[in-house]
Amino acid sequence: MSEPSATRTAAELRALMARAVREVRETNPLAPSITNTVTQNFVANAQLAVGGSAAMVYLPDEGECVAAMGGALYINLGTLLPIYEQSIPRTARALSAAGKPWVLDPVGVGIGSLRTQLIQTVRDDKPTILRGNASEIIAVAELWGLDSAAASGADGPRGVDTTDSVDAAERAAVAIARFTGGAVAVSGATDLVTDGTSVARLAGGSPLMTCITGSGCSLGGVASVYACVADPFVTALTATAAYNLAGARAAERCTGPGSFQVAFLDALYQLTPEDVAEAPLQLTVL
Amino acid sequence: MSEPSATRTAAELRALMARAVREVRETNPLAPSITNTVTQNFVANAQLAVGGSAAMVYLPDEGECVAAMGGALYINLGTLLPIYEQSIPRTARALSAAGKPWVLDPVGVGIGSLRTQLIQTVRDDKPTILRGNASEIIAVAELWGLDSAAASGADGPRGVDTTDSVDAAERAAVAIARFTGGAVAVSGATDLVTDGTSVARLAGGSPLMTCITGSGCSLGGVASVYACVADPFVTALTATAAYNLAGARAAERCTGPGSFQVAFLDALYQLTPEDVAEAPLQLTVL
Amino acid sequence: MSEPSATRTAAELRALMARAVREVRETNPLAPSITNTVTQNFVANAQLAVGGSAAMVYLPDEGECVAAMGGALYINLGTLLPIYEQSIPRTARALSAAGKPWVLDPVGVGIGSLRTQLIQTVRDDKPTILRGNASEIIAVAELWGLDSAAASGADGPRGVDTTDSVDAAERAAVAIARFTGGAVAVSGATDLVTDGTSVARLAGGSPLMTCITGSGCSLGGVASVYACVADPFVTALTATAAYNLAGARAAERCTGPGSFQVAFLDALYQLTPEDVAEAPLQLTVL
Repeated sequence: MSEPSATRTAAELRALMARAVREVRETNPLAPSITNTVTQNFVANAQLAVGGSAAMVYLPDEGECVAAMGGALYINLGTLLPIYEQSIPRTARALSAAGKPWVLDPVGVGIGSLRTQLIQTVRDDKPTILRGNASEIIAVAELWGLDSAAASGADGPRGVDTTDSVDAAERAAVAIARFTGGAVAVSGATDLVTDGTSVARLAGGSPLMTCITGSGCSLGGVASVYACVADPFVTALTATAAYNLAGARAAERCTGPGSFQVAFLDALYQLTPEDVAEAPLQLTVL
Repeated sequence: MSEPSATRTAAELRALMARAVREVRETNPLAPSITNTVTQNFVANAQLAVGGSAAMVYLPDEGECVAAMGGALYINLGTLLPIYEQSIPRTARALSAAGKPWVLDPVGVGIGSLRTQLIQTVRDDKPTILRGNASEIIAVAELWGLDSAAASGADGPRGVDTTDSVDAAERAAVAIARFTGGAVAVSGATDLVTDGTSVARLAGGSPLMTCITGSGCSLGGVASVYACVADPFVTALTATAAYNLAGARAAERCTGPGSFQVAFLDALYQLTPEDVAEAPLQLTVL
Repeated sequence: MSEPSATRTAAELRALMARAVREVRETNPLAPSITNTVTQNFVANAQLAVGGSAAMVYLPDEGECVAAMGGALYINLGTLLPIYEQSIPRTARALSAAGKPWVLDPVGVGIGSLRTQLIQTVRDDKPTILRGNASEIIAVAELWGLDSAAASGADGPRGVDTTDSVDAAERAAVAIARFTGGAVAVSGATDLVTDGTSVARLAGGSPLMTCITGSGCSLGGVASVYACVADPFVTALTATAAYNLAGARAAERCTGPGSFQVAFLDALYQLTPEDVAEAPLQLTVL
């Protein structure tokens, strides 16, 4: 792995992104998940399509076990079960103790008490990558006491969809990345990825990605696959670029959200290192 | 919303159905669910395809929270978890107390004790729309003490599939609609929808809808989306007509249940207000 | 049903396989499941595609209830929930007591303590068919104390994927089939099916089957459908042959794993008794 804290040029990052795509195809890394029941089939299929391997669990000792087995892990808070009160903290702790990369997707932050409690509990286990929409990223920064100013202008989440713009979440994303020492990916029409030092904006994708369930969740799952072979910033950039490319290609071949989802998995499967190396990537050093 | 208790002509109902389709596309209403794990991905994708927004939860306080956030809610008893003993009654109570519309799908009534208990518990919270196959509707009428005569000739459920005809469930459906003051939708080769005053029969669809899992569940999810903008009878008619149209169109473009499901979501996405305004609808005033 | 213990020729077996395919289409048998949340939609759709009927449950008394309702049952240990500590043993016991056929898929054996405990608990309820990849079959033989020698050279499971070859699992598979008196199906590039007396090898399928999640799980579900009408060995052969044929056909019509999955369900739906009667089947009598 390259040193994540160094500031790199867009060309250097693109080369590392291409390498991540290639290395996943060659090594088929296992990235287990504790993820929601609504989209986990799509998460697993997206992880397999890019060349990774998937395994989903719910129980506390199983979370610890797969944390030890995998190269990285994905935790998605979409549909909480009572046992998650134990499973999520124990798994996050195991990952943190082992220095393993992990991706957190704080889906639906603001719904119910356990969700808030879990996000606060895993704060100091510092997810390597935090992925969410703008409202979710702003809400996490506020819950973690990292950027109350950014949160003050936010509209807050509405169920699982965002009511804030990606730009409105930049301060929160940078604050979180500086706190975790990892990366934050904010999904939107133009996506934002930051490691706290640089901010990248990635255009592309398709409006149809919001017409299917699980495009965000499966992006988190795919990021956890790339996290097995790349540093957090390169991981978040690679997964985001892969999604934007596959989304744009799938949109050209479909007649609605059903055929879009099918074409999207096919496009992820066909994705090459060269594709990702040419991804539109606008980089700003803070 | 229009006044649900007035008796309306088929032409008036069709105009209201077209308005519901349009209004959902324009306002993207959120209809959360507590629904089964088998088909919830399809439920969410169908809700998105017609223009709604989806969010699934399991925990009691999350059910109450999303009941407050959404315009309507969907409760489907397909795969019960232990926590549902609390989640379903508390959520139904919250909906009832707030006067929010909700759709109940009593999948698999007759399997196990919790399912029966839950259906009895939510009786007096009066689901705005009850949706099921003929055997399920008859079984609910019997459990609620509404139409024991209708139930006497029934074969009872066989797992999740019906053993009774739609016509055999008419008395039970009318009795339930009169009790709840809402609507009941009975799925079958020709569907039956009633508000206790009128009975509508809607032909169409495709036999392939019984060759995929979740066509009934996702119809309930789509109904909960329309319930955000229309009264119960119009809601049940709109969702049923939308499904029949999308099913018939998907059947023309597919080579089996895999491609049918893909084409079905595409057809739901392409559905227009004009399509629904022309739906075959045979209306009888009781 | 034919007598399972007699040694039959490949031609006799092929005729019985064709009969199983036909009889399922004609009688639409119900094969309920307690199965994982990741792939259960695909399991149900595959069961429907071959002509069966599906119903998934989680609770102990529901497991017992559907065990009584169905012609056979499918238990898959993919994503354990806490309640499974009760549901799986009680359901397996009910099946065993009723002499009903059931299929066990020990997905992820080795992950966590409950999984091991459950596999040990159901040992003496003797699953009619055990289905898994090579590593899983070897691990079960070891857990059941049936073939420690075979297990000694095994690499062990890596999450849900195999690290062992099908041939390496032959001794374990034969030992298990002799213990249960049923059949064992080992999935791989060439699949192995045994009843402890004969060993069949079935080629075909497609490498794309490992690029989607649930090809193994849904094979178990489809096997439980055929188990409603055929003896264990014929059941395992029929399901395996059906999967190899459908996989090969789907691979010809797809451009990646998304379209493969769609084409696969279509191909299962189109499968005829004649197709299965011509399946490549290499039989060795032990």
